[in-house]
Amino acid sequence: MPAHPRSRAVPHLWRWENLLRLAAQAGDIVPVGRGGERRAIALANPALGGRPFATPTLWAAIQYLMPGEDAPEHRHTQHAFRFVVEGSGVWTVVGGTGDTADGDAVPMRRGDFLPQAGWNWHAHHNATAEPMAWIDGLDIPFQYVMESQFFEFGRAEISDAERITPQRSRSERLWGHPGLRPLSVGAVAPGSPLLAYKWENTDAALNDQLLLEKEGYGGTVEPGHAAVRFSNPHDGTDVLPTMRAEFHRVTRGSETAPVRETGSSVYQVFDGSDTVTVGDKSWSVTRGDLFVVPSWEPFSARSEAGDTDSDSGALDLFRFSDAPVFEALQLDRQEITR
Amino acid sequence: MPAHPRSRAVPHLWRWENLLRLAAQAGDIVPVGRGGERRAIALANPALGGRPFATPTLWAAIQYLMPGEDAPEHRHTQHAFRFVVEGSGVWTVVGGTGDTADGDAVPMRRGDFLPQAGWNWHAHHNATAEPMAWIDGLDIPFQYVMESQFFEFGRAEISDAERITPQRSRSERLWGHPGLRPLSVGAVAPGSPLLAYKWENTDAALNDQLLLEKEGYGGTVEPGHAAVRFSNPHDGTDVLPTMRAEFHRVTRGSETAPVRETGSSVYQVFDGSDTVTVGDKSWSVTRGDLFVVPSWEPFSARSEAGDTDSDSGALDLFRFSDAPVFEALQLDRQEITR
Amino acid sequence: MPAHPRSRAVPHLWRWENLLRLAAQAGDIVPVGRGGERRAIALANPALGGRPFATPTLWAAIQYLMPGEDAPEHRHTQHAFRFVVEGSGVWTVVGGTGDTADGDAVPMRRGDFLPQAGWNWHAHHNATAEPMAWIDGLDIPFQYVMESQFFEFGRAEISDAERITPQRSRSERLWGHPGLRPLSVGAVAPGSPLLAYKWENTDAALNDQLLLEKEGYGGTVEPGHAAVRFSNPHDGTDVLPTMRAEFHRVTRGSETAPVRETGSSVYQVFDGSDTVTVGDKSWSVTRGDLFVVPSWEPFSARSEAGDTDSDSGALDLFRFSDAPVFEALQLDRQEITR
Amino acid sequence: MPAHPRSRAVPHLWRWENLLRLAAQAGDIVPVGRGGERRAIALANPALGGRPFATPTLWAAIQYLMPGEDAPEHRHTQHAFRFVVEGSGVWTVVGGTGDTADGDAVPMRRGDFLPQAGWNWHAHHNATAEPMAWIDGLDIPFQYVMESQFFEFGRAEISDAERITPQRSRSERLWGHPGLRPLSVGAVAPGSPLLAYKWENTDAALNDQLLLEKEGYGGTVEPGHAAVRFSNPHDGTDVLPTMRAEFHRVTRGSETAPVRETGSSVYQVFDGSDTVTVGDKSWSVTRGDLFVVPSWEPFSARSEAGDTDSDSGALDLFRFSDAPVFEALQLDRQEITR
Repeated sequence: MPAHPRSRAVPHLWRWENLLRLAAQAGDIVPVGRGGERRAIALANPALGGRPFATPTLWAAIQYLMPGEDAPEHRHTQHAFRFVVEGSGVWTVVGGTGDTADGDAVPMRRGDFLPQAGWNWHAHHNATAEPMAWIDGLDIPFQYVMESQFFEFGRAEISDAERITPQRSRSERLWGHPGLRPLSVGAVAPGSPLLAYKWENTDAALNDQLLLEKEGYGGTVEPGHAAVRFSNPHDGTDVLPTMRAEFHRVTRGSETAPVRETGSSVYQVFDGSDTVTVGDKSWSVTRGDLFVVPSWEPFSARSEAGDTDSDSGALDLFRFSDAPVFEALQLDRQEITR
Repeated sequence: MPAHPRSRAVPHLWRWENLLRLAAQAGDIVPVGRGGERRAIALANPALGGRPFATPTLWAAIQYLMPGEDAPEHRHTQHAFRFVVEGSGVWTVVGGTGDTADGDAVPMRRGDFLPQAGWNWHAHHNATAEPMAWIDGLDIPFQYVMESQFFEFGRAEISDAERITPQRSRSERLWGHPGLRPLSVGAVAPGSPLLAYKWENTDAALNDQLLLEKEGYGGTVEPGHAAVRFSNPHDGTDVLPTMRAEFHRVTRGSETAPVRETGSSVYQVFDGSDTVTVGDKSWSVTRGDLFVVPSWEPFSARSEAGDTDSDSGALDLFRFSDAPVFEALQLDRQEITR
Repeated sequence: MPAHPRSRAVPHLWRWENLLRLAAQAGDIVPVGRGGERRAIALANPALGGRPFATPTLWAAIQYLMPGEDAPEHRHTQHAFRFVVEGSGVWTVVGGTGDTADGDAVPMRRGDFLPQAGWNWHAHHNATAEPMAWIDGLDIPFQYVMESQFFEFGRAEISDAERITPQRSRSERLWGHPGLRPLSVGAVAPGSPLLAYKWENTDAALNDQLLLEKEGYGGTVEPGHAAVRFSNPHDGTDVLPTMRAEFHRVTRGSETAPVRETGSSVYQVFDGSDTVTVGDKSWSVTRGDLFVVPSWEPFSARSEAGDTDSDSGALDLFRFSDAPVFEALQLDRQEITR
Repeated sequence: MPAHPRSRAVPHLWRWENLLRLAAQAGDIVPVGRGGERRAIALANPALGGRPFATPTLWAAIQYLMPGEDAPEHRHTQHAFRFVVEGSGVWTVVGGTGDTADGDAVPMRRGDFLPQAGWNWHAHHNATAEPMAWIDGLDIPFQYVMESQFFEFGRAEISDAERITPQRSRSERLWGHPGLRPLSVGAVAPGSPLLAYKWENTDAALNDQLLLEKEGYGGTVEPGHAAVRFSNPHDGTDVLPTMRAEFHRVTRGSETAPVRETGSSVYQVFDGSDTVTVGDKSWSVTRGDLFVVPSWEPFSARSEAGDTDSDSGALDLFRFSDAPVFEALQLDRQEITR
């Protein structure tokens, strides 16, 4: 009988209201600018020696930007993404730098997922009169262990041109049409060339799966459980070389089969409420709450979402994990524990 | 100086009005049913010994279905697609057979592209009171040479359930969301799991490229020339293992650079008019016309399309080719001859 | 029940003594030099319209070089190999051309297999006082259909330096050590960088498999039937992008299971004698005899070889096929018909 | 200017004579058996918090087996290899377990490299009257961070049959012939199916490269510096999914160009002596000495080896690293710092 040592990281929950309060407090006190670079509250797994690591490989933080504020441009080898659980009005400017910089300005709104592969320049700009918060996910712990990280400062200020943006980024106009790739693009750098996965598409895809199930066809992972993976339209692989991102929708009363996998995940409740079980822990969670599933700990969710607490009427869960590392190195294992 | 023997296939043009007339005549005379299977007028390259092959590897035919008529179910290893230059009302039913068959009914409308990988069951059903014609592309000549072809009869009649269909096929509901893949689908058979590429998406993607160009950004292949490749959302490869399909839009007055490539292509003018040059031949072409570009013959198109003769105001060209075979075997070469 | 049309190519046998006689006669009459390029007797499948094609995709010929004679340098996109069933003394000079040419001189001896990927310069030189014959295999018919062929003349004469050679080619010294790759070589062109597979290695590998079987372990394909595939040491794929080459050894009295596959093969009896069955044909064959197995025709061999008619005491069969094309395009099927 | 934080691991040297003395002392005191499993002295990088990790990803240890002693059978997901700098007489038994176990017994001799992909059963047996020591390399630190490790006990005793072995393992008889793969083997598990890379082949390959250089041809990495990578004969990739292994030979007086790379390495001097420089450290090293090159620290070696202190007359260096992880995830960077 094979033995797997208990993971060092432990199951853990962070309440959204607490994170948001901390981030807002930081917004009043801590300036954002060159040197500090970002205003972010990182989730620290209590079993990882006080380091700001959600799991041994994944970083998750709530980032906060005050009205009119800019987060300066930089780049790093760490792969990153942004996911928006509430608010809108921030533009992420990607791929600029230099005197004639003209980065691709990507709007961020509730439900949007923005992958950002390593070594791309990027800055943030809050174009509204409201503060905005969102989740940053990065492979910082993994690249810290691997000692593969590089960092470079970019411009202190983005250009005026980059502060005004169309409703869709240039990347979406090139790569956001289903099954259609631009002939003008030859070689593609690591990571998805599509810089924003809009909520309206994710929502529609999940609905379509549940409707197919209702009509008697396949499409869902299991009864009442629809799920999509955000994928690179260039080659169908994960959006980032080291991180996978998924969206799950579980209808009221459905419960997902308990699964354990090598590798760790961070979940955020996007909408609705449910009871989640991770190893021997169990929590009632609601919009914005984040929790960690360590390696080889069984996970399941029982949806208690309904029309009163969820726009979709179901439990909507965002998930990211280090699965691409495990698959690339053939270390992935999975087991349904029921 | 490397020598390439003159291709055996010759540049050739087929006028749409003639093909349509022949197909309609056949519609009056030739029944469709078991044995005959399909009512199709194949394009025969005059230099290929009288065989109904458009090029040494590609088959192209206009298929015609009378009101209420069904083309019976069968399957074959030959890869195939349908492309609709005019009309609507036919459903292609994919993946059925057997007593409890419930194939995926895919509607066909002007501009839609429907790939159909080998060995999938399929039938056609004309649900309207009008005859309908479309283009069939297959790798019949290639598989004939390779002696890889298998064929099997399916049901003589499709079920009633398969005659009624939603506006979107099940395949589109699972795979038609940009950058989103269903977690429920594991291994995927050869060829695209997305069975229809709707015109509205193709049109939007081409427009987006031209707008990006207008705003001063990349996106087009060359000035005034937008182009997309239909791709497999599972892995980003070509929609079919042996055939590539593309859509090109060329603005009025623009001319594409003359290019020659190993491998052969068939083009159909989807909208607008232009002068095309293939090797030492040159033709004025208009909606529906089909022509062949043999291996290593230079091709270019000068757009004369405008608002009066084109919905998009530009020249719209559909193309399919045997490029995936050349690339898989590392036999692809390309040269811009200007 | 799927139907496969009877292949156009037919099973056919060519006796080695006849081929050798024809080649020797040609040696007396036909000069080798610029323009004629090679003195070769091609095997023409009687069902392929008089063209010198062994199968729809494969060319096989016996090439013949008189004492001291050179075959001039050229290159072509067609992939090629040489296999030596008897004799020695010819050097194939690969990768030369130009004023300072210094091609890699590869000796050829009984049992050696020399792959030669397309677009490499090559010439032949008979360094001995005897004529020498060997088998050339190429994908000429395939590239003829695909219209992918290019050709270029090289030097009329190879250099003196290229006429003297070490016992091993440079390619063998770089790539001929099991499981060891040179760090100095970065990107590798299509096809194997190892230009000679020496008989002593092939023989040892086949013996090892039969010994493992004798000791009670796996290793053989089926009882009494050892087999190896010549593979590219860079990536383990087939030695050539369009052709597979294998060596089979069948012990006296053993019979191989009848197998049919999509794709066609040419076999040469390297040593020993046997009865082969191809479709509804059956022949007694012996050293040097060549025969063709068309697509989807069942093949089996019953070994009658022994110590008197075979150096290894068993039936030794060399085989080449177009399998890589089928696998690259996912058209491969196989069936054991017993 | 991109910044790379100084690696946490530091350059460090371990003297062979010290390691050997410690291992021999352990041999007198510590029994080997179920529970303890192995008698090994691990190299602990002084900057990694007291853990027995040579680098953040790599484990290196000297293992020691007394005359007649067995190390019991087990398996683990960690990938491993053995490299022998002196001695002989130990058999590693791979792939056994269960009542009818008949593992593949692989002899170990000076210069041999034995990869052992994760999850294969293995035990060791010292068949001689002398103690024997060798180097074990594993990805223990990497799998510890990833929390991907599994472990399982096997038999306490290997069978008598497994104590007697031919000179070559079964794996070598199947996979040890250059460019020849057994047709009987279908799918191959992660990691090399070839379980031993014999010194005689490595030595010959390095000699061949230096001779090619002498004759005026390419083949070496740089003047006087030959190198091979141990590779998987199935697909040409690294021998293990997470570890690369190489052998370098540097002629007397030659100095390798200083290179820095992401990822860490462990070197062992196999023969000869030299001065190595790692970052700002520099050491004179000789047979058996081990040292660590952390991520992004420049490394170079100046050979002082000659006929008196080296069998090959040159400096022979064995190296292993975590490069496959970096390449699989596209995190590899390299820079020649001269």
